[in-house]
Amino acid sequence: MTQVLDRIRNGVDSAQMYGTLDAIKENPALGIFQFRAQNHWIDGAHNRSTIKEFFGAGLQDTTRAQAFSVDAGEPAVLLGFDTGPNPAEYLLHALAACLTTTLVYVATARKIRLTEVQSTLEGDMDVRGCLGLTDDVRNGFTNIRVNFKVKGDAPPEKLRELVERAQARSVVFDMVHNGVPVDVTVEA
Amino acid sequence: MTQVLDRIRNGVDSAQMYGTLDAIKENPALGIFQFRAQNHWIDGAHNRSTIKEFFGAGLQDTTRAQAFSVDAGEPAVLLGFDTGPNPAEYLLHALAACLTTTLVYVATARKIRLTEVQSTLEGDMDVRGCLGLTDDVRNGFTNIRVNFKVKGDAPPEKLRELVERAQARSVVFDMVHNGVPVDVTVEA
Repeated sequence: MTQVLDRIRNGVDSAQMYGTLDAIKENPALGIFQFRAQNHWIDGAHNRSTIKEFFGAGLQDTTRAQAFSVDAGEPAVLLGFDTGPNPAEYLLHALAACLTTTLVYVATARKIRLTEVQSTLEGDMDVRGCLGLTDDVRNGFTNIRVNFKVKGDAPPEKLRELVERAQARSVVFDMVHNGVPVDVTVEA
Repeated sequence: MTQVLDRIRNGVDSAQMYGTLDAIKENPALGIFQFRAQNHWIDGAHNRSTIKEFFGAGLQDTTRAQAFSVDAGEPAVLLGFDTGPNPAEYLLHALAACLTTTLVYVATARKIRLTEVQSTLEGDMDVRGCLGLTDDVRNGFTNIRVNFKVKGDAPPEKLRELVERAQARSVVFDMVHNGVPVDVTVEA
């Protein structure tokens, strides 16, 4: 029992984690993943993504019994009916979630037990860009600030290192910070 | 009644839209927005963002009665318990939602009535990057593909133009495609 408790750290099965790392090290093809989302417009600023299948570890994943359904919207001042967070807020959520999970996995690998991880994110923008009123400002956030509060059974400098490592390895941080080629095609 | 119906196109109040554009043109300071998210770790790959307040149009918005609560997770193969879409999937959702809403707003301004907007998104990645197994691949998606299907009361070339315009003005497309400076601070 003590062994099992020791094996599960921060809600992560460390033995499974090491096994996964070894398997992918052995066979790099298992590291190829493809994630997907399907979105359909409902009305106005209200649209919904359905997220279920993905490819990874050499096969089409079938472990998800049900699709996730995620609704987006806009507040009244941006012409919507608040049917969900807006897309820019979802981007902040994606960034926060990815940095947090990466941090938790790194802590688990380093045998640090966490007791608290919180983050606050802010993104600044001038909506004159996306509204097409000027070309002098960009459409998206000019900058994003993330503040982490981390507690656990390690000295403050070790906890701060976890956040550094999370930045160095986070999937969404990389994409939001460095950009990704996006190809858009249309059937009309 | 016909006038009201004509004013509401694609679920968007076109008169309110023109009014908003005029007001921001008149007073550019109204275009300054700040969006926010707060995230807290629950266990393992499970964390939750709370999204409510934002600043925009010259004031702290108080029109949202309740906060949105959005859960992230990872599937079993990535050491989680499927408590929600994963962060990379949320990024695809943010991108789909933003392109779609931008497209709907542009169609409304151009007096095009839409009957269907659907999109399918795929992002490719090699998880050896984020797992720290190699520095030869990036952490995030190497590329993202978006396919739109758009129907409405305009010729196909006009509908395709809507997608082009959405790419040119979408907040999240800009950020994902071009990247954003992100500052991360820590309290530990």
